[in-house]
Parts: sequence; structure tokens; C-alpha cells
Amino acid sequence: MSREIVEAAESILDKPVQVLDHGFVTLVEYMGGDASIVKAARNCVGITDEVRTREEDVSLIRYLLRNKHTSPFEFVEMIFHMKMPVFVARQMIRHRTASVSEASARYSPVKEEFYIPDKHHINFQSALNNQGGMWVAPEEIQHRFQEIEEYLARASFEAYNTFIGKEPSVQILEKDVFDGLVTSGGIARETARIMLPLAMYTSWYWKMDLHNLMHLLKLRMDSHAQSEIREYANIMFTMAKKVAPITMEAFEDFELFSMTLTKDDIAAITSLRNHAKKGTDDDDVLKRFKTRREKAEFLEKITELGLLDLLYAKHP
Amino acid sequence: MSREIVEAAESILDKPVQVLDHGFVTLVEYMGGDASIVKAARNCVGITDEVRTREEDVSLIRYLLRNKHTSPFEFVEMIFHMKMPVFVARQMIRHRTASVSEASARYSPVKEEFYIPDKHHINFQSALNNQGGMWVAPEEIQHRFQEIEEYLARASFEAYNTFIGKEPSVQILEKDVFDGLVTSGGIARETARIMLPLAMYTSWYWKMDLHNLMHLLKLRMDSHAQSEIREYANIMFTMAKKVAPITMEAFEDFELFSMTLTKDDIAAITSLRNHAKKGTDDDDVLKRFKTRREKAEFLEKITELGLLDLLYAKHP
Amino acid sequence: MSREIVEAAESILDKPVQVLDHGFVTLVEYMGGDASIVKAARNCVGITDEVRTREEDVSLIRYLLRNKHTSPFEFVEMIFHMKMPVFVARQMIRHRTASVSEASARYSPVKEEFYIPDKHHINFQSALNNQGGMWVAPEEIQHRFQEIEEYLARASFEAYNTFIGKEPSVQILEKDVFDGLVTSGGIARETARIMLPLAMYTSWYWKMDLHNLMHLLKLRMDSHAQSEIREYANIMFTMAKKVAPITMEAFEDFELFSMTLTKDDIAAITSLRNHAKKGTDDDDVLKRFKTRREKAEFLEKITELGLLDLLYAKHP
Amino acid sequence: MSREIVEAAESILDKPVQVLDHGFVTLVEYMGGDASIVKAARNCVGITDEVRTREEDVSLIRYLLRNKHTSPFEFVEMIFHMKMPVFVARQMIRHRTASVSEASARYSPVKEEFYIPDKHHINFQSALNNQGGMWVAPEEIQHRFQEIEEYLARASFEAYNTFIGKEPSVQILEKDVFDGLVTSGGIARETARIMLPLAMYTSWYWKMDLHNLMHLLKLRMDSHAQSEIREYANIMFTMAKKVAPITMEAFEDFELFSMTLTKDDIAAITSLRNHAKKGTDDDDVLKRFKTRREKAEFLEKITELGLLDLLYAKHP
Repeated sequence: MSREIVEAAESILDKPVQVLDHGFVTLVEYMGGDASIVKAARNCVGITDEVRTREEDVSLIRYLLRNKHTSPFEFVEMIFHMKMPVFVARQMIRHRTASVSEASARYSPVKEEFYIPDKHHINFQSALNNQGGMWVAPEEIQHRFQEIEEYLARASFEAYNTFIGKEPSVQILEKDVFDGLVTSGGIARETARIMLPLAMYTSWYWKMDLHNLMHLLKLRMDSHAQSEIREYANIMFTMAKKVAPITMEAFEDFELFSMTLTKDDIAAITSLRNHAKKGTDDDDVLKRFKTRREKAEFLEKITELGLLDLLYAKHP
Repeated sequence: MSREIVEAAESILDKPVQVLDHGFVTLVEYMGGDASIVKAARNCVGITDEVRTREEDVSLIRYLLRNKHTSPFEFVEMIFHMKMPVFVARQMIRHRTASVSEASARYSPVKEEFYIPDKHHINFQSALNNQGGMWVAPEEIQHRFQEIEEYLARASFEAYNTFIGKEPSVQILEKDVFDGLVTSGGIARETARIMLPLAMYTSWYWKMDLHNLMHLLKLRMDSHAQSEIREYANIMFTMAKKVAPITMEAFEDFELFSMTLTKDDIAAITSLRNHAKKGTDDDDVLKRFKTRREKAEFLEKITELGLLDLLYAKHP
Repeated sequence: MSREIVEAAESILDKPVQVLDHGFVTLVEYMGGDASIVKAARNCVGITDEVRTREEDVSLIRYLLRNKHTSPFEFVEMIFHMKMPVFVARQMIRHRTASVSEASARYSPVKEEFYIPDKHHINFQSALNNQGGMWVAPEEIQHRFQEIEEYLARASFEAYNTFIGKEPSVQILEKDVFDGLVTSGGIARETARIMLPLAMYTSWYWKMDLHNLMHLLKLRMDSHAQSEIREYANIMFTMAKKVAPITMEAFEDFELFSMTLTKDDIAAITSLRNHAKKGTDDDDVLKRFKTRREKAEFLEKITELGLLDLLYAKHP
Repeated sequence: MSREIVEAAESILDKPVQVLDHGFVTLVEYMGGDASIVKAARNCVGITDEVRTREEDVSLIRYLLRNKHTSPFEFVEMIFHMKMPVFVARQMIRHRTASVSEASARYSPVKEEFYIPDKHHINFQSALNNQGGMWVAPEEIQHRFQEIEEYLARASFEAYNTFIGKEPSVQILEKDVFDGLVTSGGIARETARIMLPLAMYTSWYWKMDLHNLMHLLKLRMDSHAQSEIREYANIMFTMAKKVAPITMEAFEDFELFSMTLTKDDIAAITSLRNHAKKGTDDDDVLKRFKTRREKAEFLEKITELGLLDLLYAKHP
């Protein structure tokens, strides 16, 4: 293994990609790429021969990923500079295997930047899916939401800036009180910030190896993730494709767009197929599922596979 | 090693201790204690003899902690149920070696609970210490801070409750618009919550082994930590003392109340002492320090050790 | 969440289960069980209602595992006391999320215990599968292997015991040299042990949470794992079933006996099925696979699912 | 933060440094350096000004390390290619925060390379220090140790090579048996290797961030570490100094050559000093120490600080 320079990755270094109204993701540094994954894996299996074809690399990387030989992917690192609302940061920080250096609201004042969702992010609560919002809200309500949220955020920052002694608001403190506050240094930033909303922006450097990044992307590009964090994840994914294109294609094939059949799914398909060959119906096939959700998911899966009509082999 | 029951720990299980205005810390589960640390360590050094004195246990545990043999301490686990403001949760989650199950504001509505700091938490920004607030603010400003923060938090929750279709506010939406919103399920909770402040409360189960808990406590009981998280850390420390009293006493002696002398500190003390014995002054002693801060810290340390007058051995 | 006592787990505490010729696995401690997983998850989704049915628990746990909501499983801990050959320990320690306290060969002498494989563990190297051995070797060779290995191990321990001054071997050192060695304390244990074989036994306490244990089991119960570590993993699995039976059944259904269909697998099945309905053959279906292995794996999967004849829909 | 190129690090890339008789350490890749630590930290405290002096960098890095602000150090990564005996690898792998890709003895045959300690590594067991060997053994015994160890290692490899079907040893298998073995593919490598000694060499790629590397070095450069692993650690330290010289100097000053005074040490020094000023003796000063070892360590510390005579202020 020696220094890998990946041209496609070099070409996007230090170029911020905008997200939401004030956010961004920038790839500021990377280490390694598909080639270093291959080298780490080859040391493991004892192949020291340096000559190899692209096909062998593709085959090896895809084999590793499919069989959960995850260590070699840890040899690729990416550092992102990101700006995102606090509620997005709170979701992302749950991924514990990153290194993070976040802007501290204790050390320096928070800039007056907060997230106002675009209308397509303001939806009705889904009754089926507790996590998200799917049905479009009327424009009138979307607009009112933006208005109220902006009003509240501005009011919060007005109070915050007043109390840290930065910009006086006469509605909050009389002039002489404000002047006294400024002279004394203002209320501690760490205390004043508690009135700011979860919509306020924060920023950090985020370092993650490719194995752990794929895990994050799998969860955060998913349709169950909140739409805002999905936008960040999608950009990180695009950047990872520049650094390690073979790996990320394998990730799409084996993780993003794969399907897991449970033990019961397998037994059910086999049984349905056997019945179909005999021209009979397996009337009990759905009884094997231990929960309602698993039964529903099974039906979704065989629909996607084009196997739904196996259920009605006898009486199509 | 077999099941350890620690009476003092049993006696506090499931008993919440109040923190701040609406928060709490409850020890809900623990595994092991001083005895299991000893057993793990004895396996390591090959002592299988089961008879041992309390003195031997104390001596072994203190030896392990002093010499950074940290693995045995990982065999003790504690699970806390905690409620705390979001800004405290954000500081605590930076400790990555915990297992966390946090109440999700996507799955269920946020309760209208937010933190109003008691006056002793509302101080002026320290000019010396960027992290904190040390000088007491006048009561007039403290009071105004509480008033404004409460007003903003209430307004945020009023908007939140309106948009999730829970409690109408006619100032925010007209009655028929609100009714339509309710019928449709309200704006998605995950979106509505972004206007809520960092002062709002959240709750989680927090599992940590004793080695990592000591690391957290060392940083969060420190005078540089924000006063609110210090209150949580102090309670966790008290609870850990119930589970593993010998270990936590060693932690106080070797971590909390210890002092680190740098290479330059050691050389400076030795040189000062040699000069003092010869009745001369070491005029260059402070020049060895590579930064101003290190020089200042050195003076603090020798003051605490009662060695400051070594600086003026010749001309006291 | 409060203290969980799981009767089935209590009944196996401190009862060693033998593995290989001198090894064992003992469950010495555990924390939590299915019930604590449920409680941690319910805090997350905001259900505080304490009354719940077993069906709801089953449904929730299975939902969590299927959807990779892994945090709640981290709230269950197990501590194993294990004795195993060094080459098994070396494989197991690659799972980094455990806490380990291993017997140190620096602190105390190694006991003369080493692993002689039973005949069914002595097989010919597989040509297909680089990892393992599958074809049975003739008894003559198996026997000779055991003989030679035992001879070498005994010779190593004879030398080791001589050099650490424990048991003299006149072939290695003359009596007076040995006596002088003993008087001086013997060669350092840390040095003398380097001649001992990978077959020698070591022991440790091994603590792991259930989420990470499932990950270990998934890899080490697999048919590609070495047969010796599989024996250890199988016992740990049996013990985990005592602690968290609902979870471990879900683990079997969704992990151990599941099947992953890649993006290409899904497309191939769908295409085959569509062709079959139209009574045509999809002659290009196998061309979509990016590597030979993936094509072979696809054929294995559709065979298991009973779908292989879709390949020959037209000309069965 | 953008790509850091550190000239001194570039100059040692891919250049193996020999260790022991057959081992080596090679720096094959790195990411970042002192400058990236500074940038990560500056984002945290909100300094975006790009102009800065070397003195400010030094001051910031030393402040971060002294105050355990460890996150920024995680932004520097190093990848080492290493070859070392198995017993060294077993010690090193206990550091769990590394990424490792080790040569697998299941995938490819082990090369006949094993470690014969040089005479200065063959010492008598220390009676005081259970971990190590300190007193020099007579040359006669050292020589005999090398002879016996080499004999055993060669015999092990002879058997290993025979059983994997590589090189026949007629003492182990008759020719026709060996030929049959070869035809059948030999005994599985994973099984045959169990007779090889802990002295055999293995190799890996080892990736670690600088924060965790410093932790490893602190423990493994220590005089209590086994002399062989110390040689590896010393080389890694030298390489880290190329990548991040300011940080590694701070590491020497604050970690490697620092001294920790416990709560009792501080109280004892203060008390001794107060007595000395009054011209009295503190006869009880050593009674405050909770264990014999702590008392002994205290005496060592005040000896190093030149303060020992405070014990005899009255009667020097």
C-alpha cells in the first residue's frame, strides 16, 4: 500500500455543495480509495503480486462487501466539513464511529442562521409511519408554518443577541441595562443559547472511514429517514462515489437496492412454488408469519419479485 | 466471577434524583461492582485463590487504576434513565462509548417541558475562560432572562402544539384552518419540532461501563464544564460510589483531585530546589516553559504544593 | 427499566460447558433480557404504558431487529468465562467491541494444556474454499498429525518449564545449570513462552452486549468459520437463547437463516418470471451479473427458493 | 481544512525500518498533521482567520493535549505495514481502536520465519515486577535458549510444511503417505498451523488515528512493556514525529515524561513543606497513604523532584 491519489476525488476537494437554505457539505480530505481496499485485502489473503486487472479488483471488492469482510473498507477515510441544522446534527451524531469537531456555542457566538423548510419538506404526519411526513399539506398551512417559525427564530436570536451584549433590543432590555450588560461582558454564551431553536445551524468537521460511512448511508438514505438528513446523506454518497467508485457501486447493488428474505419468506416462496408446480394452492402459507408486519412485508417482497401470483396459482 | 449483588446499589435502584427544574437521573440497572473488577483482574494475573482480604482488593483496584490497566473496570455496567435539556444531552452524547435509547420527537409529541435556569446559573461571560460564565449577573438581568426565555419557549410550544394539531392557537391559525389540519393529522412531528428551543427536555436510557463513566465524570465534573451538566455528572458520580465504592475513591484520589506535572514542571521544581539548597536563585527557571499558559499553570501548581517560595529562595 | 431476572439464564450461571479437549464456556454474569430491550425501545417511541402482551413484545423485538434499530439490543450484556486455544482466541479478539481480561503469560506460568484436534477436525484443505478444510483425511494421517502435534507441544512445554525454572529437563540443561537458573528466578516468563504453540490454551473473561454478540455469532457460526471457533460460537448462541429467547429466535429468522437478494438478483428473478408468464426464455438473464461468483450465488439462491426452473420456462 | 502534505512524512513513506530479526515497520500512508489538528480545533472555537503564527499553533496544540481535548487529534491518521512475532501481535491487538488487515494463515501458507531473541532480550524473571525480565542471564543460558527455541521452531515448521503438503519430511510421513497427502491437497492450513510457535512472524496493515496511537505509545513505550513491543512502539513514535512534530513533542512533555501526583501526594508534599518552614518534622506524613505501593511511589516521586530531604527537615 502506498499513497493513493484518486483524480475524481481531488477534483471535488474543498468545493462546498449547498444543502437546504444555509447548509453545505464539503469534502476536505480523504485517504485511500478502491486501490487501498484491494491492497489491504490482498495482504490478508497473502497475494503480494502487484500486477492485477481491474476485473480482479472489482471481483475482490464485491466479494468482500457481500461477505461482510469489512476491515479493508476501514482503510479509506473521508473528512467532511458540514453545516446543518441542530436537529440534523443530533441525528447524525448517533453514528458513534465518527471523529467530530463541532463549532462550540460556548466559545463563540452563534451566527443568526436558521433553517426555514422549503414547502416540499412541510407535510402532514403519516398515520402509518410514525417517523415521517408523507402527505402534502395545503400551501396555506405550509406558508403559515414558515412565517411562524421564522418569527420565532428571529425573536430568539433577538433575545440571544441582546443578552450576549451584541445587539440591543429595546423591547427586551432598556438601554442603560443593556449598556451595563455589555460592559460586564454579557450573559454567558453557553447560557444564552438555550433559547435558540433546533432549527439553528451548527457546523463541524466529520471524519469517518468508508465501512462506517456505508452503514450511515444505508440508514440515512433510507425512505424512513427524515427528508432533511437524506439530502445530506445523498451528497455524502455522491462524494464517496468519487473516492471509491467500485466500492460504492457494490454498496448500491448489495445494500441500498438489495432485499432480505427471512427464514419464513424463503420457506413460504418454496412452498408456494411447490404448490404451483402441482397446481394446488397453499392456503396456509401466510399463517407461518409470526407477526402481521412480517406478513405484509412478505407480500411486498413477492410483489416486487413478480411472484405475487404464486399465491393464486390454482385460481388466478 | 459470579453474580454480584451490591446492597448499596440495590437500595437506590429506580429512585429518581431530581436535577434542574424538570430533570432527573435514575439508576435503573447495574452489573458488577468492586468485586467483579477484582475477579477480572485476578484472572489476568493468574490468581484463582478465592480467599482474599478487603485490603488486598483495595490495593489491587488502586494499583489497576493508577497504572491505567483499564479493562477490568469495563466489566461493571450502569444504566441510567435521565431527563435533561437538549443542550445538556448534546454535550453528553459526545461520549461515544455509551449505549443510548433516546425518546424520539419523530415518534411521539414532545411534552411541554423546558428548562428555565435558576438564577445561580445565569452569569456573565468570563473574559478569561471562553467556556463559561463566572461573574454573577445583577438580579434584574437574571430575572429578565428568565422571563424572556420562558416567553419564547411558551410561544414555541404554542406554535408546535398548534401545528401538530394538538392545541389550537387562534393567533397562529384560524379555527377552520386548524380543524382541517387536525383532520389531516397535523404537520409531521419531525418538522414541527424544529422551532422548539435547546432548553426543551428530552430523556434517554444511558448505559455505560465504569471505565468510560469515569472518563466522562473526569471531564464533566470539572470546573470548566457547564454548570448544568456538572449537576448531572455529580449525581452519576454519587450513584457510581454506591456500585463500586473502592473504585470511586481511587478515582477521586488519582483522577479528580490529582495533579499532573509536565516534563518542564519537574525540571523546574528540581532546579529551584537545587538552587534553594545552594542559597541561590534560578532566575531563568520560568524561561523553560514553551507557552505563557504553561508558565501560569506551573505557578498555580507550585502554589498549591506550597512550593511557591522556592522562587525566592535567596530574597524571600 | 428495572432489574431483570431471567430464570432460564440464572439456571445456567457458573456452569461450564466443555468445548474441545480442555476448553469451556461459562456464562458468569448477564444484565437484562428481552424485557429490557422492549423497555429501552419503548422509551424511544414514547410508550410508557407498562401493561403489554407477549405478542406485542415479540412484534416489537422482531421489528427492531429487522429494521436495524440496534441500540436497544446493546442494553443486554453477557459475561463469559472461556478457555480456548490461542488460535481461537486470536480469531475472536478481532471482534473489537468486547471487554476482555485475558490470563497473562507474563504474570503467571502457562499451564501445560494444549489442544489436540479430534479426528473430525483434521481434514484436507479445500481447493474451492481457501478458508477451510472439508474433505476427510485418511485416519492414518489424522492419527500421525495428532502424534506429531502432541510430541511437538510436549517438547515445547518441556523446554518452557525448564527455562522458567519449574521442571528440569536434563536433555535441555545440565543439572547444575538448571539449579543456577532456578536460584536466579528462571528466564522471564514473557520470553520463555514464545516457543509455545498456537495450540496452547489461554483463558479470559469476555463481556459483550447482545447486539455485538449477534454480529460475532453471525460470522462465527457460519460454515466458513473454522470448525473450532464454531463450537465456541454455538455454545454462546445457546446461552444467549437463555438470556433473550425472543431476540435470538428473531436472530435465527432474520440473520442466521435469511437470504440476501442483490439488486441484480431481484432484477433477474423479475425478468425470468415475466418471461415465464409470456412463455419465453430470458437467454440474457445471467449476463447481467458483474462477476462469476455472483452468477453462481444467484443460481444457488434460486435453487434454494425452488425457482431454478424459471430458467427453462420455455424448454423445461 | 484542506489536503495536508507533510514533507518529513513523505520522505519516509514506504521505507521499512527493521525490527528484531525479521520484523519491520513501514509507514505506508498518512492523512493530516499538526496543521489539520489546528484547523479542526479552530473550527470548534470559531476562529476562521487563516493567518496564524507557528507560536499560536504550538500553543493551541499543547493546550488541547494538556486539557484532554482529544477530538482534533483523531483527524490525523497513519497506516503502518508491520511484520512482528505473534506474541507481539497479540499484545498490540488489545488496542481496539485500530483498523487491521492481518495476513491470514487460513488463506495462505505461513512462511518459515520465526523470532530468535537476541541475547539482550533473554533475561531472568524479575521478582519485583511480574511483567518483565530485568536481570541479565548468563551467556551460556542465553545461548542454550536460542538453540532450543530454534530447534523447536524448525521442527514445528518441518511438521507444518509436511502436513500442508509442501515439503516432505520422511521422519514425519513416509514418502507414499506424503505423496497421497499432496494429491489430496494437504491438511487444511488452518489446522496445520496450530503447532507453530508464538515466535512465528505474522504481518498486517495497521491504521490508527493519532489520539489512539498516543495512547498505545504511552502504554507500549513504558518500561513495564515487554522489550520486543517497545522496539515496535519506539519506531512508530519516531514516524509519528515526522507526521506531527509539534504534537509529539507535546506528547513527550505531557505524557511520556510527566508525573502524576495523587491527592495524597499533594497533601503530603504540602504538609512536609509547611512543617519544614516551621522547622518541625511531619512524622505522620507517610501514614496517610492507603497502600504500601502508593507510599513507595510517593518516595520515588519526591526523590525525582529533589524534595526527599523535606522528610528530614528537622534532622537532616
